[in-house]
Amino acid sequence: MSDNNLVISVDAMGGDHSPRVVVEGIALAHKENPDMKFLLFGDETKVNDEMKKFPALKDFCTVVHASEYVRNEDKPSQVIRNKNTSMYMAIDAVRKGEARAVISAGNTGALMAISKMILKTIQKIHRPAICTSIPHKNGMCVMLDLGANTECSAVNLAEFAIIGNILAKHTLEINRPRIALLNIGAEEMKGREEIHQAAKMIKNTHLDLNFIGYIEPHQIGEGYADVIVSDGFTGNIALKTMEGTAKLVSGMLKSTIKKSLLAKLGLPFLLPVIWNLKKSMDPRKYNGAMFVGLNGLSVKSHGGTDALGFSYAINNAAKLVRQDFVQTIRNEVEHVDLDELSQDILYDVY
Amino acid sequence: MSDNNLVISVDAMGGDHSPRVVVEGIALAHKENPDMKFLLFGDETKVNDEMKKFPALKDFCTVVHASEYVRNEDKPSQVIRNKNTSMYMAIDAVRKGEARAVISAGNTGALMAISKMILKTIQKIHRPAICTSIPHKNGMCVMLDLGANTECSAVNLAEFAIIGNILAKHTLEINRPRIALLNIGAEEMKGREEIHQAAKMIKNTHLDLNFIGYIEPHQIGEGYADVIVSDGFTGNIALKTMEGTAKLVSGMLKSTIKKSLLAKLGLPFLLPVIWNLKKSMDPRKYNGAMFVGLNGLSVKSHGGTDALGFSYAINNAAKLVRQDFVQTIRNEVEHVDLDELSQDILYDVY
Repeated sequence: MSDNNLVISVDAMGGDHSPRVVVEGIALAHKENPDMKFLLFGDETKVNDEMKKFPALKDFCTVVHASEYVRNEDKPSQVIRNKNTSMYMAIDAVRKGEARAVISAGNTGALMAISKMILKTIQKIHRPAICTSIPHKNGMCVMLDLGANTECSAVNLAEFAIIGNILAKHTLEINRPRIALLNIGAEEMKGREEIHQAAKMIKNTHLDLNFIGYIEPHQIGEGYADVIVSDGFTGNIALKTMEGTAKLVSGMLKSTIKKSLLAKLGLPFLLPVIWNLKKSMDPRKYNGAMFVGLNGLSVKSHGGTDALGFSYAINNAAKLVRQDFVQTIRNEVEHVDLDELSQDILYDVY
Repeated sequence: MSDNNLVISVDAMGGDHSPRVVVEGIALAHKENPDMKFLLFGDETKVNDEMKKFPALKDFCTVVHASEYVRNEDKPSQVIRNKNTSMYMAIDAVRKGEARAVISAGNTGALMAISKMILKTIQKIHRPAICTSIPHKNGMCVMLDLGANTECSAVNLAEFAIIGNILAKHTLEINRPRIALLNIGAEEMKGREEIHQAAKMIKNTHLDLNFIGYIEPHQIGEGYADVIVSDGFTGNIALKTMEGTAKLVSGMLKSTIKKSLLAKLGLPFLLPVIWNLKKSMDPRKYNGAMFVGLNGLSVKSHGGTDALGFSYAINNAAKLVRQDFVQTIRNEVEHVDLDELSQDILYDVY
């Protein structure tokens, strides 16, 4: 495994059905990415048992024994310095340069805390962000931050815009992503002060950013923007509201159909449609929240996902690794001094 | 019109199709509330022209001429002191005690600014809030603030909980409303500091509040709470995300059906179901954002609504007027000193 450029490190013990789902997910992802290699950290016996079902895995997977693992109920503060967990070891492999990205379906808080501690933020980036892709009417867009930072300064938001721009280019293959700040109105003076300042900063970075201003939440689904930037509290609220509303609407449709005999008669005609819709909205496709802004990529898979979902998380990470995502961010921010820019803008105000 | 207890003041010139929709809306609302009386402010000639279509209106409506009206594009600061607009006069009628509530389908910002200036906040309440009712799986719940305050202190949030409790009792007829603070996690330490402090304050008010802790956005649709409390920025984000997602999901369903011949064949069976669902989700039913916490009730109807929508806003306001909503809030907060409570809690922390 001399070429570490295409190695992904995996916490084989994370998630509800590990290591089975993890190993099956790797087997699936390998079909899409036959040149990728994997470092699996976990209970050697259990992992090797699962690997036996896929003999081909031996050629591109290396299993490293970890004597412990992080449980879902563990507090990040309890496990952050335990170097013997599969999660810690998997992240540390990225720091050592043995892998370019790490994936875990385990404890979110712990993954974030350990990733931050071990990998550290890229120079000139103040805060990492959690990011994901979501569907809209005509395609997909990138949203960040989704919960790493409950409060954000204008500088943080501007950095997320820069990172989000690269993410949308690399994962969604959008040439000039339209970047927008999530806000409660389109007018310049609506919403919070840090958002107004971030808008000024993004305009003034002299980077080639396609900044389109503010976006209101109901416009996300219309596909008005490719990158939606917000603090982690607001982003998390928006994302969970989407999940809840989608569930509410489809649940209401279902229960109304159940009550009507006529509708039940029509159902066979509609099943393929519902199946198609379910497929296009399948949350497994969007699996893999990226923890970006660090010296290495850390990816959180949904804990309850299946092998297909886990393979999507791997494939998304693989895309970023191939395009040297972390180095691209480093290059982009090298010549931007957001702190200075933020001072300039404050002087503007007073 | 000696009994001002059941008088509602109406800005007859607000909204996209005024005064027609306003007058038709009053005519509809009167069927539900035959004892209510109305003060209509606006261009006398135009309003009287519309009134002619409903001769019975004469008996319970009084038209007061207003020479000007607030336009949608007017900035609140431009119109706030113009005493000749139909909006100003309609609000002022509440201050004078001629009416108990005011309704306008006009410029939201202006309505809020003028209402705040003229009616002033109830003693001991620091900030008014915008509030509405939304549907969930098993019924309805009250949400506030939806945009009056982009940032809120713990005291503000605790006040909204108290107001929301009364609103849910009076409008939704829920005996002991379950009150929850909107947050990004259920654990005590998740989210923002002011939310944690507000939680402590609500628990310590010694009011008979059924406080159930934090609610995450995806739980709103599940019907976990009857009163959802948040700052105006977060509430507005959540509400607009709901609107957008509901539209996205139904749009996707429609376009998928359109693409499938089979599905089109099944459509006639489903039309009644879709019609029922549309009816139960009909935004006109939830029309009327209440501006609460002031000495008088100010209600904003959607600008583009029709007569039925406008009548729902009137009926919702009428419910609150009948139950002496404003006085109930006054009584409830009379013996609660939230400022002191907030100090106590701060001392707790340090």
